[in-house]
Formats: sequence, C-alpha cells, structure tokens
Amino acid sequence: MRLRYSVLGTGALGGFYGGLIARQGLDIHFLLHSDYEHVIEHGLRVDSKLGDFHLPTVNAHARSQDMPKCDVAIIGLKSTQNHLLEELLQPILHQESIVLVLQNGLNVEQTARGIVGPERVAGGCCFLCSNKVGPGHIRHLDYGRIVFGAYRGIDGKDPGPSKEILQQILDDMVASGIEAYLTDDLPTTKWKKLMWNIPFNGLSVLLNASTDAIMGDADSRLLARRISEEVRQIAQAAGSPIEPSYVDWVIDHTDDMVPYDSSMRLDFLGGRPIEVEAIYGNALQEAKRCGFSAPIVMTMYQQLKFMAGHRVASKQ
Amino acid sequence: MRLRYSVLGTGALGGFYGGLIARQGLDIHFLLHSDYEHVIEHGLRVDSKLGDFHLPTVNAHARSQDMPKCDVAIIGLKSTQNHLLEELLQPILHQESIVLVLQNGLNVEQTARGIVGPERVAGGCCFLCSNKVGPGHIRHLDYGRIVFGAYRGIDGKDPGPSKEILQQILDDMVASGIEAYLTDDLPTTKWKKLMWNIPFNGLSVLLNASTDAIMGDADSRLLARRISEEVRQIAQAAGSPIEPSYVDWVIDHTDDMVPYDSSMRLDFLGGRPIEVEAIYGNALQEAKRCGFSAPIVMTMYQQLKFMAGHRVASKQ
Repeated sequence: MRLRYSVLGTGALGGFYGGLIARQGLDIHFLLHSDYEHVIEHGLRVDSKLGDFHLPTVNAHARSQDMPKCDVAIIGLKSTQNHLLEELLQPILHQESIVLVLQNGLNVEQTARGIVGPERVAGGCCFLCSNKVGPGHIRHLDYGRIVFGAYRGIDGKDPGPSKEILQQILDDMVASGIEAYLTDDLPTTKWKKLMWNIPFNGLSVLLNASTDAIMGDADSRLLARRISEEVRQIAQAAGSPIEPSYVDWVIDHTDDMVPYDSSMRLDFLGGRPIEVEAIYGNALQEAKRCGFSAPIVMTMYQQLKFMAGHRVASKQ
Repeated sequence: MRLRYSVLGTGALGGFYGGLIARQGLDIHFLLHSDYEHVIEHGLRVDSKLGDFHLPTVNAHARSQDMPKCDVAIIGLKSTQNHLLEELLQPILHQESIVLVLQNGLNVEQTARGIVGPERVAGGCCFLCSNKVGPGHIRHLDYGRIVFGAYRGIDGKDPGPSKEILQQILDDMVASGIEAYLTDDLPTTKWKKLMWNIPFNGLSVLLNASTDAIMGDADSRLLARRISEEVRQIAQAAGSPIEPSYVDWVIDHTDDMVPYDSSMRLDFLGGRPIEVEAIYGNALQEAKRCGFSAPIVMTMYQQLKFMAGHRVASKQ
C-alpha cells in the first residue's frame, strides 16, 4: 500500500520535509495559509545544503476541507496553534490515519491523541536548522535528522501505532533523502532534544542573542550548561536516564553549529507566539509529577512568560 | 567636636543626603565631576517629597586634592567605581577619618577597608527612591531611610569604628532631617536589602521592566518572590537568619512603591556599568563560602553578566 501524506503547516519544517517527499514523487498534499496563492503560481522552492530544488507544481490547498483523506498527517504547525488541530484534521482523517506530530516540547501530542485516540499518534524530534525566507521558499541551513516513534501518552501506557506503519513511513522518508530514524523510546528522544531547546531557545530570547553569542560568552555558556544539566536531571526523575556526558555533547555540538537564530527567537522577534508551554511548561509539569524541583527551568519559564506577555513594552 | 563631612559622588544618593546635611548648616564638601561648573554657578537643587530646596552655594570641588581633610567621607559613588576610591580618598583623609560606604551589595566596604584599615569603615543601606534629573539637580521620589553601622569585614572580626563616632554621625543625620538608624548587625541589614535588590534590580534589566510591571504580572511576581526567598536562604546559611515572612514584606512593600525604575535599570539603559558583582557576585561568594547552592541567583548573575557585556547588541 502506497501511503498518502498531508502536511499541515508548510513552513520551515513542513515545507522542507514535505518538499523532499514531494520531490521523490510520493503522494503528498500541502495545506497552506498565506502562501497558498504564491505556491499555486510558483510552486515550492527549497534552498538546501543537500542541494537546492524547485517543485513547479505541488498539491497545494488553502483549506483542509478541500484536501483528500490521508494516511499520514504530518503536523508542521507550532504547538501554539494546536487549538486549530481538530478543525484542520477532521476533514482529512479516515479510520486508520496516523498523525505524526513534529513539534518541539513534551506531550505536545496530547491534542492529536484527543482527536484520534491512543493508537494513532506518533511524535518526533527534528534536528533541523531551517527558515522560511519567503512565500513558498524554505532555506535549509544545517542538519535535518528526524527521530520519531509511537506516542504512548503521559503515563507511557498507550499502544501507539503499529511498528509496520511506522516502518513504512520511515522507508518513505529515507527514500526521499531524509535522515530519519525510528525510536521505541520517544520520551528520552524528546528529553535529549529539550536538553538543547530549554537552554538555547529561552536564552536566545531572554538575552536577545544568537546561539553563537551565547556560546561565545563565558557566563552564558556556563549557564547553558547548568540549564542543560538540570533538564537531564528532570528527565532522570521522569524515567528517562541520560548519561551526564550528554550535556558535554549538547554544548560541543552547539559550538559546531553555524551561527543560528533559534526558532523561538525568530518567533519572538517576528511578533509570533512562542512555545513556552510546550517546551518549558510541560517539562515543569513532568518535574512536578515526579516531585523534582527545577529552579532554573522554572526561572526561565517565568521570565519567558513575562516576555511573551510584554512583547511591545520590552525589547524592540 | 564638630564633624567635617565630604561626599564623594554627588548623584542621586550623595546629592540628596549631602544636600540635607548642607541645608542644616553642617560642614560638608562635595566632590563633583561633570556637574562641577553648573553647581559652582547655580548651586544644588533637591526636589523632594520632604520639601523642595535649593542651596545657592555649596562647597563644591572638582578634584579631591582641592578638598580639606574630613572626619567622615561619605561614598556615594557606585561600587563599579571603587577602583577610583584610593586616589580620591587619599587627599582628604587624616589619621582618624571614617569612611561611610553607602553602596548596594555585600562587602563593598572591602575597598575602603584596604585603604584605611579595619577600624575606620562603616557601611550602610539606603532605602531611597531618588534620581539625578539634571546637573546638580536631584529628584527624591520616595523613602529615604539609612541604616548604617560598623563594617566588621568578611569574617565579622574587624573592630570597626567606635560607637561614639557612629552615634555622632547619626545625630548629625537625624538633625538634618534624614531618617537614619544605627545597626550592630550590618550583614543582616545588607541581606534584607538584597532580598529586594537581587530580585528587582536584576529582573528590571533582564525583563526590561519597571518594578510595577514586574509586580503586575503573575509569573514575574512569583519569580521575584522565589528569588527573594533564595536570598533569604543564603543569608541564613551565612549567619544572618531572617524570618520567612520578610519575603512577604518585601513583596507587599514593592506593591506600595510608586512606579519606579531600579537604579540598575537606569544605569543599564543609560549605558553605565551595572553593579552585578557587588549585588550578585558577592552574594554568591558568600553562598559558596557556606556551601550553599543558589541556583536562581547564579542564573541571574550569569544572565546579567551577559547583558552587561553585550549592551549594544542587545536591547535598545
């Protein structure tokens, strides 16, 4: 069986991965909002370190009601838009459609789970430096790895999708040139990603700095390390033990990154909502559930909540 | 014996207290820098909720070499200028001159102690909302209490100045209309002040917000409380027990303050150095000395160090 894909949220992430899948000739449909007219006329353009490409014609749609039912709905929207998911998903789901949530943060799959139930949600982490630089125009800067797997719920007891369907999605991704991997332990994958996101997304907004500025300053560099270590400790308390040396890996790896603005900073500077709850709030919920105190992450959460609520009055 | 005073640093603080002492007709000399010409010509102006006053003639000096020896040198400079103290103090000190350091932060008296020794330094906390609004022109907004006492060194074993001289200074202050008190326990007085300074100075810079904005937001308000409580715990570990309810007092008291920009925020926005080491670094030194972990204060310290070092690239 050939799978039909749809991408909800054709931005830096959905446009990049979806574009690769479309280039491979697989059956994929894109939901677009402000870029719809442009993409209908000019197609989708991806500038990538893997090789630039341009797809003159893609299956573009302005409303999910006009899209065909799909087997796999890839969620490329930010978690701050999850209140839209039910309305967007309902028209394109059949009885066995899988929802693959590619969003930062912990338990962001809960919204999809509420819509399709405990057997049909997968989650994934994307290690991707990519920006949307114009209508239907994605610039892929670095990395691109996806690690995804069954979402098993907050208590870890959901069955999740079958191995077969996950394998089939993986095969399609790999065939499309995506560096994709399956994981049986999505929470640990998420926590490892959070060991980067929690220090660097938040500091980039709070210090109004790119990652290389944060890494280039002795104090903020040490702070990033302390934050990453605190996240590791929450993960450990939550049942996802990660070796202490992974903190070193996170820091070293960031040294090697091209100068990069975190997605949270770009959202903040662009006046868009920032994913404070998905990345910080949900991690703190897990810490609380395990009786673990996370003073630094809590401090960042409260600072970021203030910043998000006082955008105009604050840095301009 | 009538005491002769001098004020080093005739700004929001030195100009206000020194102005009151001069108005009382006591013997006081002012060291001025950029405002010297203006004050020679127009005198010193203080707009105060205690009553506005104007002193057409004060003993103003542009260089401390031109000042007479004094019995009490009041340090109104910021601690970030303490590297200038030795040069400024030497010409005006006699064998028994007392140095009264009115600076935010812990152990900021160490510089003066290095100059005059362990028997001649006093320190104090000012609870003062005051700004310099123009050359030789101070605007006193609220409060004004000084609590001061012998500085006994980092280990608490210095003898400090005699009770008699401290009492005489107190009497002069009170006669001048200053709400002044003596303390036998300067460290606890300092820690109590730090329970305000550490949350509100730092957050006002990091969140680019006035104190009423910080108090008016649920998250930053809770954060301020958590920070103040952590400072209380450092103080306790350092031998200055303060009752937990003092945190409530700090928060309630800040609710009652007129909308006020912290001195650190004004310094930051004005492009002047900020007192990160005196307020945060020295408190963390004490925490370290006592083996106490202070994760939130350390986080703020590292964030502020970054901000201080990246002023231009950051918020404008």
